[in-house]
Amino acid sequence: MTRQQLVENIFEKRSFLCVGLDSDPQLIPSQYHSFNDPVFEFNKAVIDATQEHCVSYKLNIAFYECLGPAGWVTLEKTLEYIPESHFTIADAKRGDIGNTASKYAKTFFEYLHFDAVTVAPYMGRDSVLPFLEHTGKWVIVLGLTSNPGSADFQYFRSAEGRFLYEEVILKTAGWGTAENTMFVAGATHPEELAIIRKLVPEHFLLVPGIGAQGGNLYDAVTHGRNNDLGLLVNSSRDIIYRSGPGTHAQAVAARAWEVKYEMEGFVKS
Amino acid sequence: MTRQQLVENIFEKRSFLCVGLDSDPQLIPSQYHSFNDPVFEFNKAVIDATQEHCVSYKLNIAFYECLGPAGWVTLEKTLEYIPESHFTIADAKRGDIGNTASKYAKTFFEYLHFDAVTVAPYMGRDSVLPFLEHTGKWVIVLGLTSNPGSADFQYFRSAEGRFLYEEVILKTAGWGTAENTMFVAGATHPEELAIIRKLVPEHFLLVPGIGAQGGNLYDAVTHGRNNDLGLLVNSSRDIIYRSGPGTHAQAVAARAWEVKYEMEGFVKS
Repeated sequence: MTRQQLVENIFEKRSFLCVGLDSDPQLIPSQYHSFNDPVFEFNKAVIDATQEHCVSYKLNIAFYECLGPAGWVTLEKTLEYIPESHFTIADAKRGDIGNTASKYAKTFFEYLHFDAVTVAPYMGRDSVLPFLEHTGKWVIVLGLTSNPGSADFQYFRSAEGRFLYEEVILKTAGWGTAENTMFVAGATHPEELAIIRKLVPEHFLLVPGIGAQGGNLYDAVTHGRNNDLGLLVNSSRDIIYRSGPGTHAQAVAARAWEVKYEMEGFVKS
Repeated sequence: MTRQQLVENIFEKRSFLCVGLDSDPQLIPSQYHSFNDPVFEFNKAVIDATQEHCVSYKLNIAFYECLGPAGWVTLEKTLEYIPESHFTIADAKRGDIGNTASKYAKTFFEYLHFDAVTVAPYMGRDSVLPFLEHTGKWVIVLGLTSNPGSADFQYFRSAEGRFLYEEVILKTAGWGTAENTMFVAGATHPEELAIIRKLVPEHFLLVPGIGAQGGNLYDAVTHGRNNDLGLLVNSSRDIIYRSGPGTHAQAVAARAWEVKYEMEGFVKS
């Protein structure tokens, strides 16, 4: 999917919600367990309930990998089930030397047909470039992550006063363009979102950390958006495991709608 | 496997060779292609040919993942085929927030029964700790990697003159012990191996970069070893894709023996 298509989808839907399919067999409601592939049935229900309200789905690969070969089948079936209109992200956080990074890129882009993959920057240029060789695909580089451990190394500071996360974003932005590169920037660091926005005014940011991790939407958007909105805000646990007065699917749909409703105000169509 | 067992294996065999099963279907010799699972047959042949000469096998997960569900089956079968006496490493370079890192740890330690997993440090403490909760298992943290891109961020320098790779090694060493934590330190940086050895005198180092990547064994060992030897030196492409006057398996065995022979001189039994 091109940047323009993504922006159009966001403005048409007035939503920049990415639903995270961190589908944990131990957390999915009991009614799905009677199916042959409980995780797939759960994902189907979540996708049916949310596709109107979101523009993207992010699949956390760890949750599928831990099921062995069957998990990869579930991953493939889930990807096929997601409508083409939705931007798909493999949250894999891969990062390895060139020949290995090429294999990972092939897996996620050619074999599984994801639009984007998250990539860890620690190993540098040759761990990122192989992903950028795939036309029409995206690399989403970890910038400033949403977790407590982000404080350990991402704030490591140079003699010139630059934090590692700033160095990563500035340098990596030069390897691709705003048409094929995004950055992960956690909602748990709202003030740094404004700093990142200045470093990369054109790039999309993938913003995790809303909901279970404690970030809030208003702060993330006011600090992080650009003229094209420029944000995909992810919510996983807060949406997909909802329960309510009705069915699981109804509760999920209601929560996705609520988040989308809050988003509408920020997207002037 | 405990540190003591690993050290004993090294001194008994007078080898600290780790053979990397980066088994690429496009590079494996044609005779394996007639089998139902060519990569597994290739791996079996390589394991049969090298197990006498090495103490460890490292499986690069990207090369299995790119085959889809069948690749995971090959991975499982290969792991089962490796003798229990050999230290097994999942070269996965995972790194994610706590709940996700727990899933990865479960996959590689409980489901696949690896002894160790390589982990990327960028996301900090909660991306590493879940791996350390598994008794008898190891985390191998990326310190200074062997690839050209290691120059991009690993040499990012603090106001106090400390490189990021030094900060990563020092801080991460404090999260575990020399009994459950190793560091990746590339043979392509022999002088830095000496620096790393001073930072973590007790820890094992996993040393890639010999062979195809240009590092050499003598420099790596003289700069990187400690009293227990303290090194696992990996070789992948240089061993597994050998051809020679005899069969593929004979060429692989001969090359592994050569490397082991060079190693013997460093291990006083």
